[in-house]
Amino acid sequence: MPNLKIRNIKTILTAPEGINLVVVKVETTEPEIYGVGCATFTQRYLTVQSAIEQYIKPLLIGKDVNNINDIWHSSIVSGYWRNGPVLNNAISGVDMALWDIKGKMANMPLYELFGGKVREGAAVYRHADGRSVREVEENVRACMNEGYRYIRCQMGTYGGTGQSFVSPEGAPAGAYYDPKAYMKSIVGLFEHLRAQVGEDIELLHDIHERLTPIDAVNFAKQLEPYRLFFLEDALPPEQLEWFRMIRQHSTIPLAMGELFNNPNEWMPLITNRLIDYIRVHISQIGGITPARKLTALCEAFGVRTAWHGPGDTSPVGHAAHVHLDVSSINFGIQEWSGFNSAIQEVFPGCPEVRNGYVYPSNKPGLGIDVDEQLAAKFPCDNALPTWTNARLPDGTPVTP
Amino acid sequence: MPNLKIRNIKTILTAPEGINLVVVKVETTEPEIYGVGCATFTQRYLTVQSAIEQYIKPLLIGKDVNNINDIWHSSIVSGYWRNGPVLNNAISGVDMALWDIKGKMANMPLYELFGGKVREGAAVYRHADGRSVREVEENVRACMNEGYRYIRCQMGTYGGTGQSFVSPEGAPAGAYYDPKAYMKSIVGLFEHLRAQVGEDIELLHDIHERLTPIDAVNFAKQLEPYRLFFLEDALPPEQLEWFRMIRQHSTIPLAMGELFNNPNEWMPLITNRLIDYIRVHISQIGGITPARKLTALCEAFGVRTAWHGPGDTSPVGHAAHVHLDVSSINFGIQEWSGFNSAIQEVFPGCPEVRNGYVYPSNKPGLGIDVDEQLAAKFPCDNALPTWTNARLPDGTPVTP
Amino acid sequence: MPNLKIRNIKTILTAPEGINLVVVKVETTEPEIYGVGCATFTQRYLTVQSAIEQYIKPLLIGKDVNNINDIWHSSIVSGYWRNGPVLNNAISGVDMALWDIKGKMANMPLYELFGGKVREGAAVYRHADGRSVREVEENVRACMNEGYRYIRCQMGTYGGTGQSFVSPEGAPAGAYYDPKAYMKSIVGLFEHLRAQVGEDIELLHDIHERLTPIDAVNFAKQLEPYRLFFLEDALPPEQLEWFRMIRQHSTIPLAMGELFNNPNEWMPLITNRLIDYIRVHISQIGGITPARKLTALCEAFGVRTAWHGPGDTSPVGHAAHVHLDVSSINFGIQEWSGFNSAIQEVFPGCPEVRNGYVYPSNKPGLGIDVDEQLAAKFPCDNALPTWTNARLPDGTPVTP
Amino acid sequence: MPNLKIRNIKTILTAPEGINLVVVKVETTEPEIYGVGCATFTQRYLTVQSAIEQYIKPLLIGKDVNNINDIWHSSIVSGYWRNGPVLNNAISGVDMALWDIKGKMANMPLYELFGGKVREGAAVYRHADGRSVREVEENVRACMNEGYRYIRCQMGTYGGTGQSFVSPEGAPAGAYYDPKAYMKSIVGLFEHLRAQVGEDIELLHDIHERLTPIDAVNFAKQLEPYRLFFLEDALPPEQLEWFRMIRQHSTIPLAMGELFNNPNEWMPLITNRLIDYIRVHISQIGGITPARKLTALCEAFGVRTAWHGPGDTSPVGHAAHVHLDVSSINFGIQEWSGFNSAIQEVFPGCPEVRNGYVYPSNKPGLGIDVDEQLAAKFPCDNALPTWTNARLPDGTPVTP
Repeated sequence: MPNLKIRNIKTILTAPEGINLVVVKVETTEPEIYGVGCATFTQRYLTVQSAIEQYIKPLLIGKDVNNINDIWHSSIVSGYWRNGPVLNNAISGVDMALWDIKGKMANMPLYELFGGKVREGAAVYRHADGRSVREVEENVRACMNEGYRYIRCQMGTYGGTGQSFVSPEGAPAGAYYDPKAYMKSIVGLFEHLRAQVGEDIELLHDIHERLTPIDAVNFAKQLEPYRLFFLEDALPPEQLEWFRMIRQHSTIPLAMGELFNNPNEWMPLITNRLIDYIRVHISQIGGITPARKLTALCEAFGVRTAWHGPGDTSPVGHAAHVHLDVSSINFGIQEWSGFNSAIQEVFPGCPEVRNGYVYPSNKPGLGIDVDEQLAAKFPCDNALPTWTNARLPDGTPVTP
Repeated sequence: MPNLKIRNIKTILTAPEGINLVVVKVETTEPEIYGVGCATFTQRYLTVQSAIEQYIKPLLIGKDVNNINDIWHSSIVSGYWRNGPVLNNAISGVDMALWDIKGKMANMPLYELFGGKVREGAAVYRHADGRSVREVEENVRACMNEGYRYIRCQMGTYGGTGQSFVSPEGAPAGAYYDPKAYMKSIVGLFEHLRAQVGEDIELLHDIHERLTPIDAVNFAKQLEPYRLFFLEDALPPEQLEWFRMIRQHSTIPLAMGELFNNPNEWMPLITNRLIDYIRVHISQIGGITPARKLTALCEAFGVRTAWHGPGDTSPVGHAAHVHLDVSSINFGIQEWSGFNSAIQEVFPGCPEVRNGYVYPSNKPGLGIDVDEQLAAKFPCDNALPTWTNARLPDGTPVTP
Repeated sequence: MPNLKIRNIKTILTAPEGINLVVVKVETTEPEIYGVGCATFTQRYLTVQSAIEQYIKPLLIGKDVNNINDIWHSSIVSGYWRNGPVLNNAISGVDMALWDIKGKMANMPLYELFGGKVREGAAVYRHADGRSVREVEENVRACMNEGYRYIRCQMGTYGGTGQSFVSPEGAPAGAYYDPKAYMKSIVGLFEHLRAQVGEDIELLHDIHERLTPIDAVNFAKQLEPYRLFFLEDALPPEQLEWFRMIRQHSTIPLAMGELFNNPNEWMPLITNRLIDYIRVHISQIGGITPARKLTALCEAFGVRTAWHGPGDTSPVGHAAHVHLDVSSINFGIQEWSGFNSAIQEVFPGCPEVRNGYVYPSNKPGLGIDVDEQLAAKFPCDNALPTWTNARLPDGTPVTP
Repeated sequence: MPNLKIRNIKTILTAPEGINLVVVKVETTEPEIYGVGCATFTQRYLTVQSAIEQYIKPLLIGKDVNNINDIWHSSIVSGYWRNGPVLNNAISGVDMALWDIKGKMANMPLYELFGGKVREGAAVYRHADGRSVREVEENVRACMNEGYRYIRCQMGTYGGTGQSFVSPEGAPAGAYYDPKAYMKSIVGLFEHLRAQVGEDIELLHDIHERLTPIDAVNFAKQLEPYRLFFLEDALPPEQLEWFRMIRQHSTIPLAMGELFNNPNEWMPLITNRLIDYIRVHISQIGGITPARKLTALCEAFGVRTAWHGPGDTSPVGHAAHVHLDVSSINFGIQEWSGFNSAIQEVFPGCPEVRNGYVYPSNKPGLGIDVDEQLAAKFPCDNALPTWTNARLPDGTPVTP
């Protein structure tokens, strides 16, 4: 095999499901060999594009595609400031694409390069939401009927129900979030669900980092009797030390990490065994290379993986998840949001779920591709999201 | 008494109960004086035989039988790498046999050399299993009728009941284990047993190191109301730090250690008072010499002994247990599996249980012998066990 | 590529340099595709052979060669007791051979499957010994002239010089070791070397776990002024907590681990940052699969790798080292003992050193082979070593 | 062997060297079988006698001599308040005597019952004192000429030289002690000794618990360059936590314990690895039974034994030391004060030193006896010692 070089790096922006995706394509000096990677950071996709086009691409053109480790480490320090969003996403896009190329050159699906499968498929969890306990229950039952055995139950998305608060005069318009109503209604939700759907289904819940620390502690304790599979994102990244207090008061399994970009976020949680599932967004930490090291770290501490996998991960990222999931002994669960038909056409080779398990492609590399022409038909929209700017009843921005 | 030398070391392989046993016979320059020791590691008995025949025997032939301490320390470092299965078992076989010889030379049962009895007999626990709570209850009552007051209750051996899982396509054949079904059914089992058999019986349970850490924490908390005498092997040896978290959430007494071979496994648990009963398999740690030191260590930290004593310990090993049990102030309980008639014939002098207590032999040394000719009539079978390679519902090997 | 199965596992015993080596050959259902791995445990090579032939081979025949992770985890728990010498070596032999096969199937040298090179060659250190400071100096200069820039300096192998002790009457014959003479002479050695060969050479030293803990602390402090690259194996595996005290009193870089077999040995040292270089013998921890995870763990804690690489590692094991060395960002240094011509003939493809760097093979897989017929011409010798049973001046076995 | 009972317990008070000794003789229902033990507490010998005669004897008459463990535990709690001087000494006398009987019944020297020898003789240290550095040096050389290789060097016993202090008016008469003069003169002593007698001799020193904590820390640091074998009794038992600070500032090996009577004194020092040698007075902790457990505890933590062995231990106690010394892997050194001819006549079978090693008796049991009639010729003297009531320069009693 000749020493292929990086000939070009393309950034592909597309939104077949209405969610802005950033996909990287690394082209080599061998025209038929290229790789794809996920660099998605929906809320800042243009800035990721800028990082790739204006910095990573000129840095890497001409580099040997084989040297993934060298490229990763060279890229991460090339801007001096590092371990943050945007730059990590850009590096992730290239890193996944280089692993995709590696797999193609080896003529092996990526899980084989990772040491081979320890399971044939990866169990997934779906998201069931609703405006009332009844509606959530119906959605849970619908998921169960489709063969899912792990279901994340929310109500009012991340806000619960029953909000009836009084704001000060002059409070700005926008999304509001009432922590007390949220907590009360969600405890009621799980009481209802366990009574109605029984114990033979795994239930999960996501706090989405919006509670004050002591409310999160209290909430984790209140939820303990409902035997959740795990409780997601109990605290914001600025208040991680409070996980110790959750641990003191509750044995509820804890998953954390979608907001993480920096080793100083995950190291204390993992090495002090304060969480049970690491749930980082792989493109936020820089791709497959750091994700595999993180998996090994977690294994040593009894922590399992649950890669962040909603719609703001591209199918390319989802494909990467599945290769990791089936080859890692300490895989825990895979978040799964499904694909509409548009996205499946744009990304031929999307992983498939059957009966609650997602299966990796057996094609070389990631086993997924991107149809650039079709992708262009689903342009991104730079409108700012509102949910990231919710306010408390008194009008305060919800921040850590 | 002349300085007797080691003249020969024999490895006797026998399986009178269908379980492969490894017994060592140390012969001395005084033909009528010999000793027997247990070197059993059922799943690797031929490898233990190799270690004894090809390394330990040539190292020790001609050594003074009196110098047990010197022989133990010389043997443990003679291969440089140490503190692991196989090599520890081999050393254990010789160590017990030398203590047996020492007792014969002193014309005293071993407990006398250990400072004499602090109790006449050692309380034992039996194992009661069943396919349903009803069947377990019946077996518990049967044990009670035989005079046992400590009963380890399992259901479906180490798997619980109620498994109805879905595996991914292509999952390998073999033994499967469903942690959630296990936990749920066992909590139900103890609820049933306490309701039916009352409080005047000590109940125990063995997790057998198969749960994830946080599940083990949660399970220990759920079982607390049923007042178990102890909960065995809550975590695998690779995840011992999680015992801290079990301690935070449950006051259930904890027993641990049948898998231990290395001081770095037991030291942190004992010195941080994370367990209440040390339950090592004596031949896995190298015999009576290290077991007595371990007992003294445990006494200083308020930990009691509960030597691992199922059928994969030979009656010679069981005899060693009983001598330790009756002479150690911090003895806790002795696991007991009973003997069939074949094994009692092969090993004349098996310790006897009466009314829930096992009594040591009053003959010199261990007080047990092996009939080599009869032993040869029960050859070992090298078929690999399947239970050691159980899989989770998704097909993953059950490993730490 | 069809799903190849394991057709046969061979254990090859050979001693071309007079050191007993154990090499495993895994043959597949595709006759021309096979792999080799190192299972060497010199002092117990026949026992390793038993573990492979009688247990690992029957367990794995027919298994899919692709599933290295599944095979590793299935093997490690298949005997129930685990994490020790002999069994880990056996698993290592198969694990390396499966990675060799994986590389051949991918048509790539192994470092490519590990993410590619971060350096072209790996710096090595050689061993310089002598009976006097003058002789050591000469040997250091000879190494320097051959291009080595890292030299481990010993005197009297691991014993120092100037021993003139009095033993008690009746002390046994054998190898003796005088800790005080050792410490004094080695401090003098480094004083001499720094004065004579200057600062432009990296010097290392190996205590070989023979000092009492407080002597090791004191010795590490005394050696600090001589700016060693690292101090090896300061404490035995039974006394690892004392590394904390060495750290309090000396900033000398510390390397540890050739005796390790169990995660409970390395975890506390790494996670408490008590060492700077992990120096395990890869076949003692079970092969490439655990070594890569250990490397990732070390990277997270700022610890570098320095795989144990003397003559009791086969060239197959050395080849594995080099693939890991060039592809791991946190590689530190590689121990190197060189090959005689006999061993190079038995193992075609031995890695080569040029100017102080060892280079990996660019052939697929490990890039090394074993000539079975030639190997058979160098039979192993089962004579027991004496150095493992050294005694202190008063006749006590040197043990932890 | 019939079950012998305790028929009588005698307390023998004697002072053949002018030091009050308390020896216990346990007589059995078999007239020719009896044992001896050391219960010596010189400064309160009559109170020990009272404890034995008035409490321990009535408690134990008629008990089975075999059950040493039971008798020890029964005795220790029989007065409810425990773990203190006087009562521990009384128990020690009986405990040693019972072990002596056990050895006689086994027809074995005690070291055989303890698992046999790991060395033929135990290295001892002698005490060299003097009024000047010159005189100490001469005494050191005299010891060296007698074959001793470990020498404890004091000057002015425990007071150093060069005292020239001013006391307040009205300060009481008596022994005075000047810490600053002591420290300064002792540092000078070791500077002198190392310059004059060189490095090939092991030097020790005993602070005797008289410094303030921070002075002890400072002194340990000042002495570090002189490479002492160990520094004894740096702190009083009321200030043990200060050992942490000594450890922070000095790598000097530390020995501690002659004043200990209570597990809470030794446990923190050993388990935190704050000392290197445990140096308890065996009769102060209750005899051989607790000493053996303490030895095992120390081994686990890398601490060695150095039993307190001056003239206020009877030869019976010295005999016990030697049996422990030769059979314990973690023996470090034995304090040795020698015997005059009177004491050797009173105690036939005193252990002997040849060329710096003390050798155990090969006779059954302790191998030492007491000639009661001869003992009575050396009556004890109840005059109070003055050294225990030293005062600081300002007249303050020297206390912790």
